[in-house]
Amino acid sequence: MTLKKFIPAIAAAAVALPTVALAQDAPVPGVDASTDSIFIFNTLLFLIGGFLVMWMAAGFSMLEAGLVRQKNVTMQLTKNVALFSLAAIFYYLVGYNLMYPLGNWSIGSDETGGYLGAFGPAVLEAVGITRDAADDYGYASTGSDFFFQLMFCATTASIVSGTLAERIKLWPFLIFTIVLTAFIYPIQASWKWGGGFLDSQYGFLDFAGSTVVHSVGGWAALAGALILGPRIGKYKDGRVHPYPGSNLALATLGTFILWLGWFGFNGASQLAIGTVGDAADVSRIFANTNTAAAGGAIAALIMTQVMYGKVDLTMVLNGALAGLVSITAEPLTPSLGAATLIGAVGGVLIVFTVPLLDKFKIDDVVGAIPVHLVCGIWGTLAVVLTNPDATLGGQLISIVIVGVFVFVVSAVVWYILKMTMGIRVPAEDEITGLDTAELGMEAYPEFAKG
Amino acid sequence: MTLKKFIPAIAAAAVALPTVALAQDAPVPGVDASTDSIFIFNTLLFLIGGFLVMWMAAGFSMLEAGLVRQKNVTMQLTKNVALFSLAAIFYYLVGYNLMYPLGNWSIGSDETGGYLGAFGPAVLEAVGITRDAADDYGYASTGSDFFFQLMFCATTASIVSGTLAERIKLWPFLIFTIVLTAFIYPIQASWKWGGGFLDSQYGFLDFAGSTVVHSVGGWAALAGALILGPRIGKYKDGRVHPYPGSNLALATLGTFILWLGWFGFNGASQLAIGTVGDAADVSRIFANTNTAAAGGAIAALIMTQVMYGKVDLTMVLNGALAGLVSITAEPLTPSLGAATLIGAVGGVLIVFTVPLLDKFKIDDVVGAIPVHLVCGIWGTLAVVLTNPDATLGGQLISIVIVGVFVFVVSAVVWYILKMTMGIRVPAEDEITGLDTAELGMEAYPEFAKG
Amino acid sequence: MTLKKFIPAIAAAAVALPTVALAQDAPVPGVDASTDSIFIFNTLLFLIGGFLVMWMAAGFSMLEAGLVRQKNVTMQLTKNVALFSLAAIFYYLVGYNLMYPLGNWSIGSDETGGYLGAFGPAVLEAVGITRDAADDYGYASTGSDFFFQLMFCATTASIVSGTLAERIKLWPFLIFTIVLTAFIYPIQASWKWGGGFLDSQYGFLDFAGSTVVHSVGGWAALAGALILGPRIGKYKDGRVHPYPGSNLALATLGTFILWLGWFGFNGASQLAIGTVGDAADVSRIFANTNTAAAGGAIAALIMTQVMYGKVDLTMVLNGALAGLVSITAEPLTPSLGAATLIGAVGGVLIVFTVPLLDKFKIDDVVGAIPVHLVCGIWGTLAVVLTNPDATLGGQLISIVIVGVFVFVVSAVVWYILKMTMGIRVPAEDEITGLDTAELGMEAYPEFAKG
Repeated sequence: MTLKKFIPAIAAAAVALPTVALAQDAPVPGVDASTDSIFIFNTLLFLIGGFLVMWMAAGFSMLEAGLVRQKNVTMQLTKNVALFSLAAIFYYLVGYNLMYPLGNWSIGSDETGGYLGAFGPAVLEAVGITRDAADDYGYASTGSDFFFQLMFCATTASIVSGTLAERIKLWPFLIFTIVLTAFIYPIQASWKWGGGFLDSQYGFLDFAGSTVVHSVGGWAALAGALILGPRIGKYKDGRVHPYPGSNLALATLGTFILWLGWFGFNGASQLAIGTVGDAADVSRIFANTNTAAAGGAIAALIMTQVMYGKVDLTMVLNGALAGLVSITAEPLTPSLGAATLIGAVGGVLIVFTVPLLDKFKIDDVVGAIPVHLVCGIWGTLAVVLTNPDATLGGQLISIVIVGVFVFVVSAVVWYILKMTMGIRVPAEDEITGLDTAELGMEAYPEFAKG
Repeated sequence: MTLKKFIPAIAAAAVALPTVALAQDAPVPGVDASTDSIFIFNTLLFLIGGFLVMWMAAGFSMLEAGLVRQKNVTMQLTKNVALFSLAAIFYYLVGYNLMYPLGNWSIGSDETGGYLGAFGPAVLEAVGITRDAADDYGYASTGSDFFFQLMFCATTASIVSGTLAERIKLWPFLIFTIVLTAFIYPIQASWKWGGGFLDSQYGFLDFAGSTVVHSVGGWAALAGALILGPRIGKYKDGRVHPYPGSNLALATLGTFILWLGWFGFNGASQLAIGTVGDAADVSRIFANTNTAAAGGAIAALIMTQVMYGKVDLTMVLNGALAGLVSITAEPLTPSLGAATLIGAVGGVLIVFTVPLLDKFKIDDVVGAIPVHLVCGIWGTLAVVLTNPDATLGGQLISIVIVGVFVFVVSAVVWYILKMTMGIRVPAEDEITGLDTAELGMEAYPEFAKG
Repeated sequence: MTLKKFIPAIAAAAVALPTVALAQDAPVPGVDASTDSIFIFNTLLFLIGGFLVMWMAAGFSMLEAGLVRQKNVTMQLTKNVALFSLAAIFYYLVGYNLMYPLGNWSIGSDETGGYLGAFGPAVLEAVGITRDAADDYGYASTGSDFFFQLMFCATTASIVSGTLAERIKLWPFLIFTIVLTAFIYPIQASWKWGGGFLDSQYGFLDFAGSTVVHSVGGWAALAGALILGPRIGKYKDGRVHPYPGSNLALATLGTFILWLGWFGFNGASQLAIGTVGDAADVSRIFANTNTAAAGGAIAALIMTQVMYGKVDLTMVLNGALAGLVSITAEPLTPSLGAATLIGAVGGVLIVFTVPLLDKFKIDDVVGAIPVHLVCGIWGTLAVVLTNPDATLGGQLISIVIVGVFVFVVSAVVWYILKMTMGIRVPAEDEITGLDTAELGMEAYPEFAKG
């Protein structure tokens, strides 16, 4: 059984124990970081990584606020602040222990890999612990691990809000967010990162979550989009009507924020930085993550120029994000060149899948399904290209299992919400705009409409 | 006498000295970080914390620029850049040594706790110091401490600008900022964090500044608002006229920036991260800070839905900030659940105090007084709920002493400014907007007015 | 020969080797960080510094998007995302090894200092290296160094885009960006930071790149501006027509982002944080960088008030940036007071050089030439004021050599581009705006034009 949390802990401990004394015979004398230092370095990695991923919540907010129409901006902002807050609370109350049962599986066991984790709210280490009192002295502080892992859960929820924008009611969306962050995300994440059956039985590899985070957000969004239906007029008279985003400066800002946050997302998923090898690996990940984003952006730039004769900024932005999602399943083993190409393929993919969704009349306001689901799958498969430990079979079956689970459960939840409280605003409210109709507050009240 | 700067230094040194050798008999062998490493870790904590708190200056700018009307945006941005710059210069010239006299009290002594610190500009350690030449080898570099503490002073000044927006003249506001950052903030901060009488005689506990920073900004703003008066038309005909913010996307961005920066604000106020206990404590603080913000946002979300039948985004944003201010006096000792509730109470408080201020015709453009003053007081009192070292009496008297000092001195300064150069723009300029009338430069010159 | 990369490595190693044992006789017992810890600390410094400088790409985007007119915002955003992505790819493919030949000079040798570096793409350290396998165990991981250095190259490219905004075609601009990031920047950077002839023969000192980065961007922009010509109508009828920026909130945000990023830019250019001296030096740099920005902003604030009777926000923003550029050549040796003054001189300089450029009909849309070129020169000269190792002659001749090289090569490239594919959009497209004419996508499609 391998737990995301414990693997590096064991590795670090194994290296650390015998080497406090000087290795005198080496040409460059070297001495390990002390065991305290390793704990502190790892904790620092999680705190820095965590605040960078937290910042991605702002990135999603700005990206989505920039890509919706002016009349729905306040609502989109409200949803983003609220979903992040709800994720924080429900991941604490339920999700964290469901995801990391640490052997206390409710269904299944460490031997079978486990299917459902432990119930109960997260509990941090006491104030001012000594090393003997640390939950896992060879790893990092529990508070830093919780803080970091929470942000991944919140990211998953952020993905959903963009797809369903401009027509979903606030409260059913928030209820879905609660189910997603308390149950859906943690349960499937436990299968891999909590040491569950995908990890122990299928050898599934997903370094920072192309599948576990991004495709999960994508599947939940897809289920929602199908049940919610497209925006009024989007596919009128058999044609696709573009609804241009209201503020591309904000959308660009959001993309840069996400790009920045992704260094924490991928880099701190190394889960350790207390040895030379871990520090060099985190560095590789930073460099690969950056170049994959660049590859995705440039691929989309060239593709839109070639295909449409004009560069399309929103495609370039989504291309960068596509590159980031694509490299997330394996940001460590690729060379810089491979990482650039993996990202570039992501950039190409979104240029083709954005119109494909429209063909099926699946209305994804910000392109989250191409970026997070399609490239999440691509990135998960691409692991086999550079990491010999991955098998195509193990990757594929894990993609399918996670996909079926998340899609089906999400669809059931969306359907129940639709049947009970309703998930869609009245048509007249949608046409007026959610800001005025539902919230009574415009985002830009003084700018005249063009 | 306890100095904020020195407490963890002593603690760290006490732990560090005897344990460089291996504790061989422990079940998990452990070895302290070296004393150099502790110095470096602590310095790194201040640098990271410092740049995060610096980033809050951008957060206040965006929040305020988003909440004022379009015609006053350029002025609000100008004030924010200028106040941060002035804080940097005057905290260096006067404030830092006033706040940390290190035994050189001008009035009072280490025994009595001291009332007025030392005069003279800040001096950093020389280039390339050895450990023997370090000002405080058991703590952190002076430059990192100065950088970090400066940002708290600047934050205090940022709070004031929002309340007084849309009607105050630029230069008197900047002069007040100088007085605040050079004298008012440092003097009262010395009483607690410089080891002054509130710290030594009253056992006042204020971890990261619910009182020392946030309520101080709030009191100064309140004094200014009372002397400046409300905006023209705000309370016309006995009714409160809402002046909606011109750009809620910016306001939301500002809130996310502040949320992010607060991890540095609270986390680095642990002042040490070179031991297992300190690293775990900083992690607790990050987790608690985040969940308190979430609690405040969700509380405001629910309250506005219940009370007004509609969610109010600006209240949700202020709710998150309210949660952050509320947890700032004690982000370490609460459990995650307690932290969430402390933040949630803050979120409830602002929903009630924003209209209350209007009842008294105190015109606070961005809601800074409810967020920073009211929740600053609440957070300071809430320390007694989770930290047994705090006494309700010690907290209360310190809140009162700081409040009276800051309010009275601020009122005197505002009054002198009003009597001499005047603090309010002419009525016609206020109606035209400060951007055109005072600066001749619009923030959004090409967007037609609605 | 001194390489930017290797100097601190050697220094750190020299300190680290003999002192693993306790210095028992010192009053405060001290022990070095372990050699592993030094490697990790330095790596962490580069990763943190690198992500902060990466964030500056967002800063330039927002600053430029805010300072161009509404009709060119999408184009400006597109250029910024694309140039950063191209810089990432071409610095990897060509630039990194050209800049750091590590003794493999194509022209020149280590003895002469070298004029042209090595060809070949960057290669990172293998996954999970041991300390013996590290490229430079006494320094930091190669991946972190690459990541950090890449961001400086990208910054140089960002500077150019602002000057040439609102009239240059997308693709020739991007081709120039490739030449700049693959060849021009790395070649001249190798002369100083790669251990080339400016470093070894002229004793040129440029800590974080007032010349190597900022003036280079400025020279390339100046060459482009001269060959491209001013915007239509800018200097019509012998008068200068102001074209106000369309979104000063964005411009202010961009400035704050750059200010934040600059802590990484200057701070991590210390290249080491694994000893007490290095940690204290990085702290000095953070403090000096901040105060120089403040000095520049306040100087511009006062100057515009005095000269024009009104504070000019765009000048204040550029003043802060001017202060930052001015301190970049030597952020370590100045005292806080000297740093403030060095920054303030920068702030004064831009107030005078912005109109000066207009006098010569050089149309610099965002003021990048005054900020990055003029203050880059000033900052490089100012090194002699506080660093006794610098000579005025060595600084001057290096400024001239770099300037002539970059200006001439850039002019040739711009000229070839002009003669072949053309660099300027048709006049009617310029008047319509690049967004509609070239990209078919407006940044703010729903806001009515005023």
